[in-house]
Amino acid sequence: MAFLLRYENVAWYENGAVRILDRRIYPIRIEFVTCHTHDEVAQAIADMVTQSGGPYTAAAMGMALAAWEARNKSAADTLTFLEQAAYTLSHARPTTAAKMERVTARALERAKTALAEGIHGEALAELLRQSAIDRLNAGYADHDRMAEYLANLTPRNATVMTQCFAESIIGCYLRECRRRNNEVKLICPETRPYFQGARLTASVARDMDFDVTVITDNMPGYTMREKKVDFFTSASDVITMDGHIINKVGTFQIALCASYWGIPYYVTGAPDPKRPTLDSVTIEERDPELVLDAMGTKTTLPGVKGFYPAFDITPPKLCDGVVTDKGVFAPCNLKHYFD
Amino acid sequence: MAFLLRYENVAWYENGAVRILDRRIYPIRIEFVTCHTHDEVAQAIADMVTQSGGPYTAAAMGMALAAWEARNKSAADTLTFLEQAAYTLSHARPTTAAKMERVTARALERAKTALAEGIHGEALAELLRQSAIDRLNAGYADHDRMAEYLANLTPRNATVMTQCFAESIIGCYLRECRRRNNEVKLICPETRPYFQGARLTASVARDMDFDVTVITDNMPGYTMREKKVDFFTSASDVITMDGHIINKVGTFQIALCASYWGIPYYVTGAPDPKRPTLDSVTIEERDPELVLDAMGTKTTLPGVKGFYPAFDITPPKLCDGVVTDKGVFAPCNLKHYFD
Repeated sequence: MAFLLRYENVAWYENGAVRILDRRIYPIRIEFVTCHTHDEVAQAIADMVTQSGGPYTAAAMGMALAAWEARNKSAADTLTFLEQAAYTLSHARPTTAAKMERVTARALERAKTALAEGIHGEALAELLRQSAIDRLNAGYADHDRMAEYLANLTPRNATVMTQCFAESIIGCYLRECRRRNNEVKLICPETRPYFQGARLTASVARDMDFDVTVITDNMPGYTMREKKVDFFTSASDVITMDGHIINKVGTFQIALCASYWGIPYYVTGAPDPKRPTLDSVTIEERDPELVLDAMGTKTTLPGVKGFYPAFDITPPKLCDGVVTDKGVFAPCNLKHYFD
Repeated sequence: MAFLLRYENVAWYENGAVRILDRRIYPIRIEFVTCHTHDEVAQAIADMVTQSGGPYTAAAMGMALAAWEARNKSAADTLTFLEQAAYTLSHARPTTAAKMERVTARALERAKTALAEGIHGEALAELLRQSAIDRLNAGYADHDRMAEYLANLTPRNATVMTQCFAESIIGCYLRECRRRNNEVKLICPETRPYFQGARLTASVARDMDFDVTVITDNMPGYTMREKKVDFFTSASDVITMDGHIINKVGTFQIALCASYWGIPYYVTGAPDPKRPTLDSVTIEERDPELVLDAMGTKTTLPGVKGFYPAFDITPPKLCDGVVTDKGVFAPCNLKHYFD
């Protein structure tokens, strides 16, 4: 697996510390943030040292670190300490707290059983690290299934356009293509303002020794025809039950270009039963200053405004297939995902 | 007129030197390159110190400087020197040499007449500077006519989306809107990889005290609906006689989004009788390294490729009007421009 997606680079507990790859500057510089307390792990998550799927692993590894921090405490006090740590880690960022709580609750359950069996201190920390790895492996297994379905849709030696970063889905997909001896080529729009396409997606493909080309975000429409792109694919932040896709801004206009040229768009993810229609979705707007800056350099005069919608909406009409861990569904037919 | 478009900032001859605003770094830093010989002016053009319409003015001012350089020569030797200077200046960049030659030939004609009248040295240089200003004024008069036709198409207090930099057309258009008391708002995609939208277009609008918002190039599709854009407009590098528009890459996908949302796209420029159809047009590909860099910082791993088509093609179907100096034409009806 690519450097960026290896367990030990996402976040790793060892010898009383959690080491987290700083994704804010990768791959321009490869630097790790080392946390000596679970509070420091929570701070690193809040500071976006790691993002996308990274914080879940960081939180799970943070629980291992908390066990080590409590190594001189009694079993009862260790449990109390871990409960507090679980809260701190899962609430490092507000939006994802509920999903993060499921990760820390799992570690907490594991710790309870272990403490009852007299496992404690460093041994408990090691056990919670293993729990974090198990969780990652379970996620990778889901992504492996998606990757398999997406690989089934992939022509031989296809040229595939992406958007933004799809965390381990893209790694699992490329691994599956390699297993099938299908040497796909990727074309990655850079994904401003944060450059995830250039910094993360392209780096994963390069690391796995695939042919990968970065373009700027104004080029997909021209490039997909010129470079004979076979399909466009992206992950998704939300898929509504009626088939609307909310994903990193730019997805909509690439999907529209794909439709214009008769090229399929496949989205990876799963429909969200709590999001029946678009009415239930809010498009986050982030700090406008971020679009007036590129890699730390201002791009225009003071007094010019910015506008930064983080996501956009692709209507079901522009999507050819929703690739889930349970197979490929038509956007109009997502309720069958729950059959 | 905005700082960037003032004659004395584009390129200016005075006291044995030509001063050129360095558009490569404007507005992050306001710096001028001072040239003490016409050879240095040619080098500055080759180095892209100024671009878009800038090199034509720089070449015309360079002819004034050449006259000053020849101030101690006889009339006959001055003419020979100016002929050589005209060649050097017009051939600073290969693609535009023919158009540049028309600018230097004009200066040469003016110089011949003046030399015959005994005008020489500093006086001749002053006269050639005035010739350069006259040429700029004639260009601005053309752009003023286009601006008037585009302003006629502009709803009251409209929100207008642009792409890339339209040199003085945008300045003339905003001036015309102001004259009509029509406080338009601009939304400028930043136009990667060179950021002309953010650095140049938005700066001109800001300088003229218009409301202007920069977005990244993945945002036009979402933004034009969200911000109720009234129309999209761009200049053009080529308009073929059959109505295809070749302009800065990204124009096509913005025009496609505009069409999806039912928003007009108006292009400024004139059809080119030497370009009957798309077959006669080559899309320039530039150094791929340029798309792997943002404001001087690399954005991805070594070994990742880049692809940099400088332009794209918007089909006539996606354009609602070609705004020329002779009025607005339908893309299917461009031959009437020459009536």
